[in-house]
Amino acid sequence: MTKAAPKKKVKVHFNPDNVDIAVAPGENLLQAAIAAGVHIYASCGGAGTCGTCKVLIEKGQVETTRTEKLSEEEFQQGLRQACQSRVLTDLTVYVPVESRLEKAVLSREQKRVSEVLAAGWRFKPPLSKFFVELPSPTPEDNTSDLSRLLRGLRQRFNLSNLSVDFEAVKKLAKALRDGNWKVTVTTLVTAAKPRAGDRRRPRVINIEPGDTREKHYSLAFDIGTTTVCGQLLELNRGKVIAEGIAYNGQISYGEDVITRINHCQKPGGLKKLQQAVVTTINGVIKELLARGRVSPDHIGHVMVAGNTTMTQILLGLDPKYLRLTPYTPVANFFPPVEAASLGIKVGEQASLFTFPAVASYVGGDIVSGIVGSGVHQRKTLTFFMDIGTNGEIVIGNSDWMVTASCSAGPAFEGGGIKHGIVATEGAIEEFDIDRSNLEPKVSTIGDAKPKGICGSGLINIVAGLLEAGVIGQNGKFNRDLPTKRIRRGRDGYEYVLSRAPETQIGQDIVITEVDIDNLMRAKAAMYAGCQTLSKSVGIGCADFEQVIIAGAFGNNINIEKSITIGLLPDLPPDKFIFIGNGSLLGARLTSFSTDLLDDARRVAQMMTNFELSENVDFMNNYMAALFLPHTEASAFPTVSKKLARLTRNNPRQRIVI
Amino acid sequence: MTKAAPKKKVKVHFNPDNVDIAVAPGENLLQAAIAAGVHIYASCGGAGTCGTCKVLIEKGQVETTRTEKLSEEEFQQGLRQACQSRVLTDLTVYVPVESRLEKAVLSREQKRVSEVLAAGWRFKPPLSKFFVELPSPTPEDNTSDLSRLLRGLRQRFNLSNLSVDFEAVKKLAKALRDGNWKVTVTTLVTAAKPRAGDRRRPRVINIEPGDTREKHYSLAFDIGTTTVCGQLLELNRGKVIAEGIAYNGQISYGEDVITRINHCQKPGGLKKLQQAVVTTINGVIKELLARGRVSPDHIGHVMVAGNTTMTQILLGLDPKYLRLTPYTPVANFFPPVEAASLGIKVGEQASLFTFPAVASYVGGDIVSGIVGSGVHQRKTLTFFMDIGTNGEIVIGNSDWMVTASCSAGPAFEGGGIKHGIVATEGAIEEFDIDRSNLEPKVSTIGDAKPKGICGSGLINIVAGLLEAGVIGQNGKFNRDLPTKRIRRGRDGYEYVLSRAPETQIGQDIVITEVDIDNLMRAKAAMYAGCQTLSKSVGIGCADFEQVIIAGAFGNNINIEKSITIGLLPDLPPDKFIFIGNGSLLGARLTSFSTDLLDDARRVAQMMTNFELSENVDFMNNYMAALFLPHTEASAFPTVSKKLARLTRNNPRQRIVI
Repeated sequence: MTKAAPKKKVKVHFNPDNVDIAVAPGENLLQAAIAAGVHIYASCGGAGTCGTCKVLIEKGQVETTRTEKLSEEEFQQGLRQACQSRVLTDLTVYVPVESRLEKAVLSREQKRVSEVLAAGWRFKPPLSKFFVELPSPTPEDNTSDLSRLLRGLRQRFNLSNLSVDFEAVKKLAKALRDGNWKVTVTTLVTAAKPRAGDRRRPRVINIEPGDTREKHYSLAFDIGTTTVCGQLLELNRGKVIAEGIAYNGQISYGEDVITRINHCQKPGGLKKLQQAVVTTINGVIKELLARGRVSPDHIGHVMVAGNTTMTQILLGLDPKYLRLTPYTPVANFFPPVEAASLGIKVGEQASLFTFPAVASYVGGDIVSGIVGSGVHQRKTLTFFMDIGTNGEIVIGNSDWMVTASCSAGPAFEGGGIKHGIVATEGAIEEFDIDRSNLEPKVSTIGDAKPKGICGSGLINIVAGLLEAGVIGQNGKFNRDLPTKRIRRGRDGYEYVLSRAPETQIGQDIVITEVDIDNLMRAKAAMYAGCQTLSKSVGIGCADFEQVIIAGAFGNNINIEKSITIGLLPDLPPDKFIFIGNGSLLGARLTSFSTDLLDDARRVAQMMTNFELSENVDFMNNYMAALFLPHTEASAFPTVSKKLARLTRNNPRQRIVI
Repeated sequence: MTKAAPKKKVKVHFNPDNVDIAVAPGENLLQAAIAAGVHIYASCGGAGTCGTCKVLIEKGQVETTRTEKLSEEEFQQGLRQACQSRVLTDLTVYVPVESRLEKAVLSREQKRVSEVLAAGWRFKPPLSKFFVELPSPTPEDNTSDLSRLLRGLRQRFNLSNLSVDFEAVKKLAKALRDGNWKVTVTTLVTAAKPRAGDRRRPRVINIEPGDTREKHYSLAFDIGTTTVCGQLLELNRGKVIAEGIAYNGQISYGEDVITRINHCQKPGGLKKLQQAVVTTINGVIKELLARGRVSPDHIGHVMVAGNTTMTQILLGLDPKYLRLTPYTPVANFFPPVEAASLGIKVGEQASLFTFPAVASYVGGDIVSGIVGSGVHQRKTLTFFMDIGTNGEIVIGNSDWMVTASCSAGPAFEGGGIKHGIVATEGAIEEFDIDRSNLEPKVSTIGDAKPKGICGSGLINIVAGLLEAGVIGQNGKFNRDLPTKRIRRGRDGYEYVLSRAPETQIGQDIVITEVDIDNLMRAKAAMYAGCQTLSKSVGIGCADFEQVIIAGAFGNNINIEKSITIGLLPDLPPDKFIFIGNGSLLGARLTSFSTDLLDDARRVAQMMTNFELSENVDFMNNYMAALFLPHTEASAFPTVSKKLARLTRNNPRQRIVI
């Protein structure tokens, strides 16, 4: 595709994807589809032997070799095996549903997500299955079972340099004979790409009698401090079979990572926390397998992304030094382990791979989010933020990346908020206020009776109260307003969002000044982190070409309101993109693509971590950000303008400082 | 050292070894010592940094660089670091005891063994220890513990491309801090040399606080069908610390491998046999560690050589198909396993490596014996035989090798012999007969009262009876002789070796015609195997330039008597060399040298196995060999001549056919 290419390019148009690509005449059609990002199912890898990559040539000419996998009738209808066809002219190609790889990467809730996702990756899962038919042994050819198998894999698939897990060797003799010398071999690549010249060494992790290629699954997990999310993946077509979520059972030992690290220092504490999260994971796995009707014996791999503390505890590695200055993790790159050895209920064949971490407070979940959203693939200067129990930020592009953890605290997940709850049914999410009488209008998730306030609701409420002049830019209530909604409660001044009879909990749901203060601290930490990190690389927030918001919570926040309170920088709304659970996204995509798995290692290595906890700049920025939206009004021009306009229109409103 | 070398060689004489070598002027003195087989301790590998390779130049000139490891005083005394010195003239060099590597390879009992041992190998154990001092973490340098360690190993020892065992990662954080950032890292190489261009990937298997380089041990084992022999090895100086032997606990499940394989087919049978041998191994380990005062935590590696059945059972791999035609092992190359996972009582860090096998009945013990005796290093056409419960033979040299198992049966170890016992105190070993009255003269191991007959005794007895005309060449008694020593017993005719009152067992010790028949079958199988295998490669027994006899039993047999009965080919006695337990020898040498470990893989691959069990030639040769020494008298000219002479001198003697 260089400009100097001598031949004139031809255009291939793929339907129903509605995607074009220009290729040199003679290009293989399957390759053209891969290059165009059109995922065609080709289980034999393009050898022409599986017949799964049939496409309909609607317009134009291809040169093709008809194999026995394509009937005369199909051929007459215009069907061709993509892998056996060469593009001759401009083409219009229709990919039938049965030949299509599911666009597993797209979740319904994720708007505009495709444009920021990791792009151009080959669908080539680290976990592969190979069906091989071997000659049975004879007195003339009585080599060992393993040599016979390896010879078959070399001859049939050109696979060499394999290492073989001992667990697989144990099953070998029986599997070969039970399958009458036809077996399916599962291989796994976990190591990153070796140095130039070295060859990859895939591991043989399982051997099953007969052809089990259709039973080809893995699991992707995000292990969050608060929740554990898992997906069951089908690896022939790149499909999410089922998704599940549960609270991390470690919550009963403390809400934040510091409490949990402290708990690990008690006798047996680490073991208890490890078991707690394993129990949670097993619950999710049980549900996923039941829904997908998949046996644990057909899970070949578990890909886990989590923050450094979650990763170390899951692996049984004491997180003690994560919380002691100078904050050192045990490792950035953890070796793969046998999932069952951790107590995870999958077959012994399954490896568990944890995403590499950058530092004690920038973990594999962030690396996973960056890889999943493709930040490392583009020149676009990106601000990536993951808003969870903690808050981590990354600034950079394909050339460089800096990162920091902001210690935002759990406010965005409802922690430290009087009536804070996680985003479940009954959580107040939307908020508006009647300017005439200062009465609230709230709506909840699932339109249930109110139960509490979730993180996104909290942002909307504080922004709404600010815009209505109920609170000032310092986050304090305007006590002179003529409304009984503002009152003095046990924890100081508060605003009543729902009265007891209207709620599920039988008591007034309020937002207090303490709550508002906690939210302000949280958003100030995020914003100050962004400012400090930007300045350290010589740029300003205004330079961001793209802002990616990750975190289950992030998915539902209102951008405008988040800018109003000063959580997000004051940029045009079209620069913001939500990717939901970025950690899970990356775990899924790396399960589909060895290239992206290699990228994960590279990304972890290229990120430079900044410790903010003892950084003077950060502390100054943080203090300056403890205001709505910020003490420097010029940094939030649109908010300042809006607040000024509202003040003009609403004579009652005063700015209280 | 080619004849065309332009420079005149100079001679280096090493004391106290009393060894000469001719080298080109300018040769490095350490290299010269290695080439001469003089093992000098050089823990830094010749970098000049350890100062352990000091030698005294008694005569002649070297050019040397004095490092800080050599004091001015030492220099004046004539001491030099061998690695820093170049040979200028003829030299006489004295290697002080503290610089000497123990000649671990030489066991007192092995006569003339040095000339057939594997030669020219570098002392470079697969297991290595590295002491590294790391900078403690600071806020500016707070990389993970593992990254810090790997960086240190790279900077200090140029070690890269390491893989790290998860068990080592688990110990890391504590070890670094307990050792105040000074730790000793143990690495292990188990994989054979990778393809050209690929780099080795040593595994980090252990991390210990402080400097533990002096605690550097491994275990070498021969797992025989009858006995288990182990050695505790010190890896800094290449020294055997202790040696132990025990009966294989599997004996209670049957004496030969076939019975044991059958037992494995019963429910729980495999597990029981596995545990039986592990218990035996643990008993030997306990004794070795106690004698060496070594902790199981300082054992880094267990190197095991055994026949294919023993290897598979130890690893818990069902040996079922080893005994079913066409006799296929599960694998020729077994992956390394965690020794503790098999129940072996060493620390979790220790890997267990099993020698590669050639076929179902030519196992890792034979590969080990070949590597240990260096057959693969020489052009010398060698006949290698391992005489144990089974009997395996190898013919070849550095270019090619063929091998076969002869199914000799257990007669050589006392099995199937009425009063047969293994070679312990009280076993009749020497036998002579008074020609005048046919009275026996027996002597036993340890000069104790007779208890039974060991394998070497059996050979001597049968040869003696034949030479005295008490039995004929068909192995039958000459019933007309005027002696009460020959009588009819419960099992047919027999000869009384010791009368009840003279024995430990309170009954007559006899040799029966059935015993003689069993011995003849065993020796016929060995000889026929040799004949068949030789013929298959177009040579005859007379072409052998060297005969290596391995097997604990082999060590004690009388060559002349063994030729007399037709067990060994009729060659001049100086062509025969005993190496004792070749399997243990190879396990020990590969523990000392990664080069030899690589050789093991290559040797296993280069050996071509011949199945004799269904070979018509073998059956014919076997039938022809059921005679003393053989039906073809011309194949044993010296024996025929001797028997003829004895017949002439002794008119009583008749040849009974």
